[in-house]
Amino acid sequence: MEKSIGIGLLGAGTVGGALVRRLVGESEAIALKTGLTFDVRKIGVSRLDRDRDFAVTDGLLTDDPFEVVNDPTVDIVVEVMGGKEPAGDLILAALEARKPVISANKELIAARGPELIAAAERAGVPFLFEAAVGGGIPIIRPLSETLAGETLDRVLGIVNGTTNYILTQMEEGATYVTALEQATELGYAEPDPTADVSGADAAAKAAILASLAFGTWMDVADVFTEGIEDLTSVDMTFAAEFGYVVKLIAVCERTSAGVNARVHPAMIPRDHPLASIRGATNAVFIEGAAIDSLLFSGPGAGGDPTATAVLGDVIDAARETLAGAQVAPRIRFSPGETVPFTDIPTRWYVRLQVDDQPGVLAKIAAGFGDEGVSIRQVWQEGVDDEAALIVVTHQAPESSQRAALETLTSIPEVIEVASVIRVLGPSK
Amino acid sequence: MEKSIGIGLLGAGTVGGALVRRLVGESEAIALKTGLTFDVRKIGVSRLDRDRDFAVTDGLLTDDPFEVVNDPTVDIVVEVMGGKEPAGDLILAALEARKPVISANKELIAARGPELIAAAERAGVPFLFEAAVGGGIPIIRPLSETLAGETLDRVLGIVNGTTNYILTQMEEGATYVTALEQATELGYAEPDPTADVSGADAAAKAAILASLAFGTWMDVADVFTEGIEDLTSVDMTFAAEFGYVVKLIAVCERTSAGVNARVHPAMIPRDHPLASIRGATNAVFIEGAAIDSLLFSGPGAGGDPTATAVLGDVIDAARETLAGAQVAPRIRFSPGETVPFTDIPTRWYVRLQVDDQPGVLAKIAAGFGDEGVSIRQVWQEGVDDEAALIVVTHQAPESSQRAALETLTSIPEVIEVASVIRVLGPSK
Repeated sequence: MEKSIGIGLLGAGTVGGALVRRLVGESEAIALKTGLTFDVRKIGVSRLDRDRDFAVTDGLLTDDPFEVVNDPTVDIVVEVMGGKEPAGDLILAALEARKPVISANKELIAARGPELIAAAERAGVPFLFEAAVGGGIPIIRPLSETLAGETLDRVLGIVNGTTNYILTQMEEGATYVTALEQATELGYAEPDPTADVSGADAAAKAAILASLAFGTWMDVADVFTEGIEDLTSVDMTFAAEFGYVVKLIAVCERTSAGVNARVHPAMIPRDHPLASIRGATNAVFIEGAAIDSLLFSGPGAGGDPTATAVLGDVIDAARETLAGAQVAPRIRFSPGETVPFTDIPTRWYVRLQVDDQPGVLAKIAAGFGDEGVSIRQVWQEGVDDEAALIVVTHQAPESSQRAALETLTSIPEVIEVASVIRVLGPSK
Repeated sequence: MEKSIGIGLLGAGTVGGALVRRLVGESEAIALKTGLTFDVRKIGVSRLDRDRDFAVTDGLLTDDPFEVVNDPTVDIVVEVMGGKEPAGDLILAALEARKPVISANKELIAARGPELIAAAERAGVPFLFEAAVGGGIPIIRPLSETLAGETLDRVLGIVNGTTNYILTQMEEGATYVTALEQATELGYAEPDPTADVSGADAAAKAAILASLAFGTWMDVADVFTEGIEDLTSVDMTFAAEFGYVVKLIAVCERTSAGVNARVHPAMIPRDHPLASIRGATNAVFIEGAAIDSLLFSGPGAGGDPTATAVLGDVIDAARETLAGAQVAPRIRFSPGETVPFTDIPTRWYVRLQVDDQPGVLAKIAAGFGDEGVSIRQVWQEGVDDEAALIVVTHQAPESSQRAALETLTSIPEVIEVASVIRVLGPSK
């Protein structure tokens, strides 16, 4: 048995707490399977976490996170505190001290990934973040290692469990408000659910997925993001009638002009593997020239599953570090073009309230046609002297779809554009 | 750009050919993404492969595979020739020469895994075999690295595309013979399909999955194996009526007494994620204490997907080797108990032809009851003076189920035990 490896923990919330319990409670099983023994040496806790039970002595706890990084007995630093600061500076300090760092912090990595990865490369130590996307689903390592030699075309992800839970409830008839309440009660949604329902959480993950899949760093600011706040159960019902399911998806795509990443609600054909991902489950669907398609699904959040992903990284970093060499980087980014979303071909589902008068459909069709958008499907239902009109378009650049929408709103008979939902495009 | 890394290839069939085309044709893309350049230096081909087009000069081809291993310009050896010998001796020779080895050879690894892994550990070089199970699906690395710190309970796999294709066709009404013919025509089945339909191919993969999942080496001889040759479309129809789908699955399970691995046709509830895996697709479903469950699915065979997995390993090995250190082992096996299949609780579906006489059901029920097997469901349909009787049992040790079956055959009214199919048990 080699000497034990000192772990320093930054943050001791749900994931940190689960990790400590595993490192302490399952140390024998881990040693048996990996030949490594770990020893939790220091835990940086906020005042909020003070009262938790970590199965460790109080002497390990500190309010000063830099004490964790600087502790000479800490060999590997695990950052599960979240937020951009002070997490970013703490990680840089640890890397500069040539300590491997494991992080589950998608927000920070999406914001400062290249800087942190470069710092790790300079120090020759691992910087691993399997838990940053997809919680307990192994996805970072398959993307950046197993598929390193593959030319990937598209990565689709259901990467936010809260919104997928809400949408699944809405599919079964709940309103957005009721579904959100249920998600909060079950602990899937934070008291302030903005980061989830606005798509911001998914956007950070989309940026990371796109960067790893295509080898070009994708700035999260370039990720078009639309949340689920405006979705109605009416549209869920129409989607079902047309053979679709509505999901909040991250789409990372390579086109001949460059790469694009975006997050928005999308209608997905009912027989697509992502359509059957229900509740808080996450899934990533990878399309490539040689592998055709791969699906990974599992628990996208939660202390225990995320701790498993962190623990896998800890074991990996320990193994590399014990080998005693400068660690060669696993991830390498080269400059590449980012294509704005407006240039990307999309398909739209548009629901309008219109005056039920002859000629209105012709005007609407002309509105789309003038922008070069052709219509694939129309459905109309009159109620009194108003009508609900649903148009599903063929593929056209997002900018043309938007221009058509602009035109529609200026047609006098159009009372309201009630909703716009994009329809998932075909794989290459 | 670092100096290029010399690749020596053992075998140049479907996978080897695809790999060479990738290494040659996509070298720029690979270099951009990984910072590594590869150079194919020697290819050991059999007479059969001589006429293929490898996009390389004839000077690289040799009939003597040891020439590949011994070539001083070959830095990494890729074994995709298949079969136990001479592949095993070639790999050992390469490892002894401190050359990293990548292999896609499940048959060899299932037979001599510990010996090869130990040789790699002694040499301090990587021995990687992502492509040995699940073709293009990343499963070996997630199991042995990402999930290294997880206590896994059960791994279920659809790991043979040929048989899954045949069963999917039978589900849609084809007979076994027709479905097998179609599989052969489409190139899914070999001219001699024995290894696939007998379950032997899946058994080798089950042994590897169980060994990695539980950290105890599982001898392939200890994997109970039953193929699909005796399945009939009649039973597929009954399965559907009862809410099941029939799949050939590898079950790797940890019990309190030890671990077990087996391959057999199983009735899987229609709503289980593996039930929707159709055609030649493969999938692995992993159950663990912390991660709950994970599903991986994708192309389980074929030159291009498998070449992607091999290429990922090549890149990984190159990265580790360039780091210049002794490579610490990723996989470590400790002694553990193997539980015989007869001790494992199973559920059975049994279809009998019986004389349609009063009292026959009572005798059959007694036959099960005397062995402690209780009945969950019975279905009977009379045709003339015979009846088809279907019994689905509750869980009882496999040995008790077998003993009950023995008793049944001795009941005079039982004309024939037409089929026995196990029913997938619940997760922990």
